[in-house]
Amino acid sequence: MLIIELLYKLRREEFLKHRREHNVYWVSDLVKCPIKREFELKYPEIALSTIYSPYYILGDLIHKGLEGVISEKLSAEIEVEKSINVKLSNGEEIIIKGRIDGIITTENGENIGIEIKSARADIGIPQQHHIDQVRIYNWLFNLARSILIYITFNRVTEYEVPDRASTEEVIQRVKDRRAPRYSWECSYCTYAILCPFKIVK
Amino acid sequence: MLIIELLYKLRREEFLKHRREHNVYWVSDLVKCPIKREFELKYPEIALSTIYSPYYILGDLIHKGLEGVISEKLSAEIEVEKSINVKLSNGEEIIIKGRIDGIITTENGENIGIEIKSARADIGIPQQHHIDQVRIYNWLFNLARSILIYITFNRVTEYEVPDRASTEEVIQRVKDRRAPRYSWECSYCTYAILCPFKIVK
Amino acid sequence: MLIIELLYKLRREEFLKHRREHNVYWVSDLVKCPIKREFELKYPEIALSTIYSPYYILGDLIHKGLEGVISEKLSAEIEVEKSINVKLSNGEEIIIKGRIDGIITTENGENIGIEIKSARADIGIPQQHHIDQVRIYNWLFNLARSILIYITFNRVTEYEVPDRASTEEVIQRVKDRRAPRYSWECSYCTYAILCPFKIVK
Amino acid sequence: MLIIELLYKLRREEFLKHRREHNVYWVSDLVKCPIKREFELKYPEIALSTIYSPYYILGDLIHKGLEGVISEKLSAEIEVEKSINVKLSNGEEIIIKGRIDGIITTENGENIGIEIKSARADIGIPQQHHIDQVRIYNWLFNLARSILIYITFNRVTEYEVPDRASTEEVIQRVKDRRAPRYSWECSYCTYAILCPFKIVK
Amino acid sequence: MLIIELLYKLRREEFLKHRREHNVYWVSDLVKCPIKREFELKYPEIALSTIYSPYYILGDLIHKGLEGVISEKLSAEIEVEKSINVKLSNGEEIIIKGRIDGIITTENGENIGIEIKSARADIGIPQQHHIDQVRIYNWLFNLARSILIYITFNRVTEYEVPDRASTEEVIQRVKDRRAPRYSWECSYCTYAILCPFKIVK
Amino acid sequence: MLIIELLYKLRREEFLKHRREHNVYWVSDLVKCPIKREFELKYPEIALSTIYSPYYILGDLIHKGLEGVISEKLSAEIEVEKSINVKLSNGEEIIIKGRIDGIITTENGENIGIEIKSARADIGIPQQHHIDQVRIYNWLFNLARSILIYITFNRVTEYEVPDRASTEEVIQRVKDRRAPRYSWECSYCTYAILCPFKIVK
Amino acid sequence: MLIIELLYKLRREEFLKHRREHNVYWVSDLVKCPIKREFELKYPEIALSTIYSPYYILGDLIHKGLEGVISEKLSAEIEVEKSINVKLSNGEEIIIKGRIDGIITTENGENIGIEIKSARADIGIPQQHHIDQVRIYNWLFNLARSILIYITFNRVTEYEVPDRASTEEVIQRVKDRRAPRYSWECSYCTYAILCPFKIVK
Amino acid sequence: MLIIELLYKLRREEFLKHRREHNVYWVSDLVKCPIKREFELKYPEIALSTIYSPYYILGDLIHKGLEGVISEKLSAEIEVEKSINVKLSNGEEIIIKGRIDGIITTENGENIGIEIKSARADIGIPQQHHIDQVRIYNWLFNLARSILIYITFNRVTEYEVPDRASTEEVIQRVKDRRAPRYSWECSYCTYAILCPFKIVK
Amino acid sequence: MLIIELLYKLRREEFLKHRREHNVYWVSDLVKCPIKREFELKYPEIALSTIYSPYYILGDLIHKGLEGVISEKLSAEIEVEKSINVKLSNGEEIIIKGRIDGIITTENGENIGIEIKSARADIGIPQQHHIDQVRIYNWLFNLARSILIYITFNRVTEYEVPDRASTEEVIQRVKDRRAPRYSWECSYCTYAILCPFKIVK
Amino acid sequence: MLIIELLYKLRREEFLKHRREHNVYWVSDLVKCPIKREFELKYPEIALSTIYSPYYILGDLIHKGLEGVISEKLSAEIEVEKSINVKLSNGEEIIIKGRIDGIITTENGENIGIEIKSARADIGIPQQHHIDQVRIYNWLFNLARSILIYITFNRVTEYEVPDRASTEEVIQRVKDRRAPRYSWECSYCTYAILCPFKIVK
Repeated sequence: MLIIELLYKLRREEFLKHRREHNVYWVSDLVKCPIKREFELKYPEIALSTIYSPYYILGDLIHKGLEGVISEKLSAEIEVEKSINVKLSNGEEIIIKGRIDGIITTENGENIGIEIKSARADIGIPQQHHIDQVRIYNWLFNLARSILIYITFNRVTEYEVPDRASTEEVIQRVKDRRAPRYSWECSYCTYAILCPFKIVK
Repeated sequence: MLIIELLYKLRREEFLKHRREHNVYWVSDLVKCPIKREFELKYPEIALSTIYSPYYILGDLIHKGLEGVISEKLSAEIEVEKSINVKLSNGEEIIIKGRIDGIITTENGENIGIEIKSARADIGIPQQHHIDQVRIYNWLFNLARSILIYITFNRVTEYEVPDRASTEEVIQRVKDRRAPRYSWECSYCTYAILCPFKIVK
Repeated sequence: MLIIELLYKLRREEFLKHRREHNVYWVSDLVKCPIKREFELKYPEIALSTIYSPYYILGDLIHKGLEGVISEKLSAEIEVEKSINVKLSNGEEIIIKGRIDGIITTENGENIGIEIKSARADIGIPQQHHIDQVRIYNWLFNLARSILIYITFNRVTEYEVPDRASTEEVIQRVKDRRAPRYSWECSYCTYAILCPFKIVK
Repeated sequence: MLIIELLYKLRREEFLKHRREHNVYWVSDLVKCPIKREFELKYPEIALSTIYSPYYILGDLIHKGLEGVISEKLSAEIEVEKSINVKLSNGEEIIIKGRIDGIITTENGENIGIEIKSARADIGIPQQHHIDQVRIYNWLFNLARSILIYITFNRVTEYEVPDRASTEEVIQRVKDRRAPRYSWECSYCTYAILCPFKIVK
Repeated sequence: MLIIELLYKLRREEFLKHRREHNVYWVSDLVKCPIKREFELKYPEIALSTIYSPYYILGDLIHKGLEGVISEKLSAEIEVEKSINVKLSNGEEIIIKGRIDGIITTENGENIGIEIKSARADIGIPQQHHIDQVRIYNWLFNLARSILIYITFNRVTEYEVPDRASTEEVIQRVKDRRAPRYSWECSYCTYAILCPFKIVK
Repeated sequence: MLIIELLYKLRREEFLKHRREHNVYWVSDLVKCPIKREFELKYPEIALSTIYSPYYILGDLIHKGLEGVISEKLSAEIEVEKSINVKLSNGEEIIIKGRIDGIITTENGENIGIEIKSARADIGIPQQHHIDQVRIYNWLFNLARSILIYITFNRVTEYEVPDRASTEEVIQRVKDRRAPRYSWECSYCTYAILCPFKIVK
Repeated sequence: MLIIELLYKLRREEFLKHRREHNVYWVSDLVKCPIKREFELKYPEIALSTIYSPYYILGDLIHKGLEGVISEKLSAEIEVEKSINVKLSNGEEIIIKGRIDGIITTENGENIGIEIKSARADIGIPQQHHIDQVRIYNWLFNLARSILIYITFNRVTEYEVPDRASTEEVIQRVKDRRAPRYSWECSYCTYAILCPFKIVK
Repeated sequence: MLIIELLYKLRREEFLKHRREHNVYWVSDLVKCPIKREFELKYPEIALSTIYSPYYILGDLIHKGLEGVISEKLSAEIEVEKSINVKLSNGEEIIIKGRIDGIITTENGENIGIEIKSARADIGIPQQHHIDQVRIYNWLFNLARSILIYITFNRVTEYEVPDRASTEEVIQRVKDRRAPRYSWECSYCTYAILCPFKIVK
Repeated sequence: MLIIELLYKLRREEFLKHRREHNVYWVSDLVKCPIKREFELKYPEIALSTIYSPYYILGDLIHKGLEGVISEKLSAEIEVEKSINVKLSNGEEIIIKGRIDGIITTENGENIGIEIKSARADIGIPQQHHIDQVRIYNWLFNLARSILIYITFNRVTEYEVPDRASTEEVIQRVKDRRAPRYSWECSYCTYAILCPFKIVK
Repeated sequence: MLIIELLYKLRREEFLKHRREHNVYWVSDLVKCPIKREFELKYPEIALSTIYSPYYILGDLIHKGLEGVISEKLSAEIEVEKSINVKLSNGEEIIIKGRIDGIITTENGENIGIEIKSARADIGIPQQHHIDQVRIYNWLFNLARSILIYITFNRVTEYEVPDRASTEEVIQRVKDRRAPRYSWECSYCTYAILCPFKIVK
């Protein structure tokens, strides 16, 4: 199992490198159920199991493949990470952190973000929480606009997202406690097996 | 449509670079319906349309992603191409050509092939024609053995293929005229719309 | 494959003869999704593949067969092509071009258009975009009225279309950017595999 | 209903021109239920009604369309009719008559028949009774071989039929009284409403 | 086929005896789609085919059987035919003609009509167009009332219809051009295969 | 309910006229379950109820209608009744009685029986017990052959039955005690509600 | 068939003993379709057939069984019959007759009715027409209240019915001509085969 | 709940009166799963609950009703109980006890048993274990034969059972330990919730 | 059946120890159908049968298992029982009694209740009547709050219930006679087989 | 989440306490797929995730509950662990380790094992691999016999297992490499997402 072991070793290393910290909010945290972030802090072993999912491995390889293409052909910088410190109304200071799949600098110096999504099929795209995520990247990385790319088995397409989140919206998202944020989240959530807020269809 | 156009441009270039020649048989030709190769020679425009399929683009990115990993982590040589001239019993000389996804050289100098397959799901794996393809690669590249990797949405696994095709088998496959080679091929074949041998379920 | 090759050769020649030009709008463009015309300009290979479709070949033969009949029995002129130059509000000048299946001149000198449609079944006929197409032909060819004929496996019938589009309507259709024009178009569109406007049922 | 009336007028004329005669067997009679021929002689009004079927009109136009193409592009002679007198074992003399869609004469003087079939879909093609019909044409017109073409909504293809019926086989078919010849015939037969041999599924 | 041939001979004779005339409107014409009457005038061969339908033969025998009973047991006059000349508002004079299944004269000199209907099942009875037909008979034959009898496989019942159409209503029905009169008519209409007004479910 | 009451009155009279007698076997008894005959003798009220069935009334009218036609057009004698005395092996003497729908005498003095059957649909015709019934009529009435006519909603056809039962067969049928004779009889039998031999599907 | 014959003999005797009279209305008549009573008067043979139904025999035995229990254990008087003469507004005098399953006299001299119902299952109980029937019994027998008992395969329960119909209500029910009284009645009615008021689902 | 309470009180009294004893085998025990008898001895409370089942109450009332009829009309002795002492091969002496629904003495002094069965429907009757039960009654009560009566919602019928069990068969049944005796028993068995021999479909 | 017998012995002892008394209302009585409590007083045998249900045994063992854990790890007092006397508005004095699964005393002296629920699946949790039950426990045991735990095959979770019922609410629940309290109760109720209030779906 | 956190803490501690060692084979390993044991050694994180499954927590509590009962009521020793060293044919020495749920010592000094299984339903019990597991316990703990108890939602039952595995069988099981041992294992196996031996249904 030469290659399989290699893939899992890389996934595990990647997971361990990015341990959650209490005062750090990833941009992806701001567009999903807030309780999930808390469960990931409290029960990291459960999150660990999901990194071995074939679904995520396949998506990871698509990212790597497409990032290679845009890096080579469009001179894009890939997997760019940045953080901004934000002070909440209660005085607490937190860190908003994000890692976008790519940033292209155009000839006139504009920065354009690139965010890749993969899925089995194209139903419901572009999804609202993806648009929201990219809008927050536009704010975090100070981008002119971003391109949201979908790679699926029956459609490969892209959407331009010119809007940008404000700092107020970001703070509002950090404070929002509604769980779940989208009713469909529970169907895909590893923590649904113990969550009192789970929505049963 | 910045990225989409880029992807299609690359696919088109790739397609045009690898025009079929009458005396060249690719290894993949030897494990599929022989009539399909003839249609591709005669009606190249129909083959052209399939290269734009999201299914193939997604598979292509998975290949690129995983080749990047094995190239970096296992020092594998990737996308290795080789050809062997073969003389048929009627005196005709043809070229058998193959391009394997990767070759790793072990510490004791053995060469191990790596062939990547991606699919929606894991039903029926490992498929016989994939095993046959890899057996012919073992012959073409003189490999100790090969690893056949499946990346699917519900399983990521690998199979070791130690067997190797003989030159006789390769010649036999070139001469075999049964159409289709597998009854399921027609369901996926672009040329089924005009093929008299199409098997209607 | 004597006849099959002949049919495909004719279809390919026909296709290559009618290359799209940027400033030319065919009447059929004005009654379908405006994005599709753009994709056809940008990715002509994808359009190429559809000309080999049995559905279109069968329709083509029905046209040829019926045009032969009306040409011989009704002294109709068949496959009449005409274009009109139109100036848009932004000053751009474009060409509106159309090819109607037949025109009959009556004894009192009136011109009557004939437009043939073929389909598997008669559901939904007469379709609105066919009526619109014929109304524009009435404008383009200055016809008294047109006859819209449907040849299907379960009904063969005809509709008289006396209305005529105005130049304003034609210009309005050129400028209309809604995509798609009809929600069902995506199900039949070759470009749905890459189109961000695709409507997923 | 200008065109519709025209089509029906032509179909009616065609029907009336080809009245059945008692001693004439069409080639198509020899590959279908023998009782049907008798019913057509006895109850011609029922046969009359079927000529108005959209299914037949559509097939007729496809024939006309494709015959135009092969006449023009391949210099084929179209709708060729011929008859041969045959004496049965009881001394009765009958006429075998056939009308093939086209005959091409090759450069080396060989005659090749062309027979066109149209259908909704391609299930079951090539059908045995079509092959038999063409084999009898090879005998009747003294053809080197024939091409059997299928025009359907999901496949357009052709089959070469080199075999030729013998005079003995033709006589045997004239005498064969099994009804129906194929069990599926009754489902499509206008006379099933009164036929004692109807096979009820 | 002794009896079968007899039945068909009688049906054909009956059909030929009652050829449509342009200025004659049967009562049954006034309660069905007005376009159907026109098609029957223009394409009588299509109407011809329907007279051979087992459905109509079966109904015909039920009529004959029941008429025999009422003629014998109730001294009814059967199959009574009558016509009235009517002048339309445009001055045209037409003939309204009807043939009722039976008329009984009661002891006090009243005339009572009898109209027989047969069907597979009793769904939807009494049907509105049957009631209308009988109301017009009450007008045409100057009847006190009529009895509408249904003979079906799961109910045998009768309805008394005392109402009577006025001459104005009859004229109104002659002039009414809505097609079809009832949306379900198309499903049973032989002319649906060519009718532009066909309602497709 | 003028007509309805008349029909029921006639059916009741007919029923009462034909009371079963212990030593009389109708031909129809010989082709059905022998227990049914016994139940009809023992519980006549249950048989009474079935004579009111719409199914039987409809069939009765079809008989009357068709008998009228053959009587008038073919000079057939209708509803012919005859009986033959038969001695069983145990010395018992019984009467075999039959009433055939019609008898035609041909020019050469041959007698041909006519037996009419009506049904909803044509599945399974000609039914074995109908053929048997007619074979016994051929014996009873000394007929050259009989014609078995089916009047159904989707087929009207006829079968010639030249075979004739022997006296031995008739006696054998009288003595046969298998119940039911056909497994499908129970589904249609009024006595199934109390019969110990009922076959439950 | 010792017992079966006995049961049927008893049922027939019972039926014949209770012949309908024109001026007698049973309480059960007042809670069902008024047309049914008329049909029972006019066509008694049809009613006769239903008394042999296993459904009624089974219910009858349950009645007998439970009446035995209440007679023995509660000193109830069983199958009590009573009638009251009632004058309608048109001067006609009719008789209202009822037979209740049991009457218990309590220690303080109160009379309590007992009415037994049996059914396959308990859906819809207590049914409105059963409550109405019992309310009329309370009036007819001058009862303090009644107990409505349901014996079904999945529930055995009882309902106390304290209400009592007035003489006005009883007269109103005699005069009510709505047919049917409940839309579900037709599904269970033997006379539906000839009733013009039948409601077809 | 006057009647309901009465029914339950009677059922409870009946149950308590017939407590199982270790050396007593009821005839019904010999035709069912032998383990069930043991469970009834060990866990009587579970058996207690089933006596309240509506299914059994309804059956009980049918028994009471029909026993009343046969007692009155046929002078049958009802609910006759008898026991016979039997010595097993191991020397153990047990008692076989049975209670048959009725015994009729014919004029010539023969005794005929009557056993009543009630059910929802008539599928599978006569059931083998009912026949066996009656055969053992024939042995126990020394009967000439018995009548097995079925009262169901769709059939009321009877079977004569002339066979009689031998003492050997009775002893064999006492010793037989196969569990269950019939595979369908478990679906109806109250003890299936704890039985290791339960057959799960 | 060593263990099975043990389990049933324990369940029976437990049942017998907790006989219902007329003036005692358990907290669980206050959150379910009031008629059920009355049936349990009147027909205790039916209640007895349910204690043997595998569903309850399994739930019982889960309780025992989890109570062991909380007793050991959280020093909780388990299976705490308490009663309060309550005077109704009519002067009657009743006893409210409850037994909570556990009570934990926190470091600051607060008492926290623990109530365990087990089920097949997590649909509909937390259920309203469980919350009500716990709210009454908060009142009865004077608890700061309670934790409602669900152990199911697809979720294990808990809810904090801080609310507390008032004495008025408790009295109101004692007096409430609506039956059933929840429409779904009947589906699970052993007494539905005799209950007049049963709601049939 | 007081209790939930407690449960998970305990499950995690339990898991960490029982880390796999390469030379230790648990009895449960000998009755399941041998590849699974290897995956657990190589990828312990994936095994970790499954310990949080509600299914296992529920089973764990049932074990604790029932062990408490048998410990208290039957003086059983619970959760007994033992190991035996075994030498394989290749000289390797391994340890067979087992932990049985309980052991009872009878009055005559015999030891009886108790093994508890819980499940949703009782389909397929007793399962072969459970019987095998208990047979190996009989060997490991030198037991006279064991009792295999099933606690499910629809049956609670037990099976006595008197057989005992031999040392040879145990060694054979250690060496057996067939994967999976049972075809159904893959459906429940966490490692199926990466296993090349997975059986896809």
